[in-house]
Amino acid sequence: MKVIITDHQFEHANRERGIVEGAGFEMLEAQCKTEEDLIAKVSDADALIVQWAPITANVIAALSNCKAIVRYGIGVDNVDLDAAREKGIPVYNIPDYCIDEVADHAMALALAGARQLKQTEERFKAGTWKIVPPNLMNAFRTMVFATAGYGRIAREVLKRAAGFKFHLAAYDPYVGEEEMKENGVEKLSIDELFDRADILSLNLPLTGETNHFVNAD
Amino acid sequence: MKVIITDHQFEHANRERGIVEGAGFEMLEAQCKTEEDLIAKVSDADALIVQWAPITANVIAALSNCKAIVRYGIGVDNVDLDAAREKGIPVYNIPDYCIDEVADHAMALALAGARQLKQTEERFKAGTWKIVPPNLMNAFRTMVFATAGYGRIAREVLKRAAGFKFHLAAYDPYVGEEEMKENGVEKLSIDELFDRADILSLNLPLTGETNHFVNAD
Repeated sequence: MKVIITDHQFEHANRERGIVEGAGFEMLEAQCKTEEDLIAKVSDADALIVQWAPITANVIAALSNCKAIVRYGIGVDNVDLDAAREKGIPVYNIPDYCIDEVADHAMALALAGARQLKQTEERFKAGTWKIVPPNLMNAFRTMVFATAGYGRIAREVLKRAAGFKFHLAAYDPYVGEEEMKENGVEKLSIDELFDRADILSLNLPLTGETNHFVNAD
Repeated sequence: MKVIITDHQFEHANRERGIVEGAGFEMLEAQCKTEEDLIAKVSDADALIVQWAPITANVIAALSNCKAIVRYGIGVDNVDLDAAREKGIPVYNIPDYCIDEVADHAMALALAGARQLKQTEERFKAGTWKIVPPNLMNAFRTMVFATAGYGRIAREVLKRAAGFKFHLAAYDPYVGEEEMKENGVEKLSIDELFDRADILSLNLPLTGETNHFVNAD
């Protein structure tokens, strides 16, 4: 049995190697970036572990023995799910990967923007020290913090936002009003989302439905 | 009765004027920055409302009718409290002024630093897009977020930090261990504070005791 990591950005894959070899299998690390590269290097794998490499229909067609495709992370948009399904290869993700870290980062960006950190720093570097922010700023307790999507990350983002006394809201056609309400979150329609959100965090999977969710119009 | 605002940075003081004149008193707005200016302009006031102007012992000595000094905000370090006490003039502050806003800003700065927003932006501007942050970063749930001081603002800061799963801690010789524990906060000695805090928020009044609390040593 041969497990191939198609690509990874970690310092090492010693933990994976320990588990795979400990189970009596072979493990190889590739750093494939393109379809051609993948077809050349991974077609005889029994299992693929994938970070960013494009697992396209052509790559999947070239797989002769593959029994599983595992994606590092939550998103699987670099794997052609239809092609994998057709060939009977199950695709796995890591549904709880870095949820806290993504939520932390989303809040860091939202707060840095709302509190005008960059503008204040620029003014300070230009020699002006003022306690009042450059632009008028509403109190967070009067503002609506909304997420597009109400999955695991969005829920963590909104939990963090609650500490800042924002009014919490979310748009997600797949989650009911009651479930949101139990968490202190108001369910919004898509029009209400864009109309009412003072801060909007996009926490959506990339699918045909969500692609270009926000556009230039 | 004459109420004088020694100085202010607001767009207007219409609200103050409405209240003071509505009570049948006179209201004047000055914009004094120096002791000399204050002595020249406010010595006949019955009450002072003060933002940043230095209400020194000399200014207080020059006050002939003053019955109250009111500071916009929490801190009173620009008022010579001993001189006011000696002359029998009560000094008032606004103990709940902008507590949320200061706590919000402290968290915005802490998160921007911890999530390396600036370094990531600089790298991005230099043409490099990488999902991994420039420096190694611990998960917030493994880090200690501590405040120096455990007053109103510190408590609001720590409430916000709780949403990010930090271990919460505080140094404040005037608040007991039990009270902190009830709020999920570990009481630290000053040595433990500097030893264990991964993120340290200074939420102290400026007094002789706290002046130069952190120094270059």
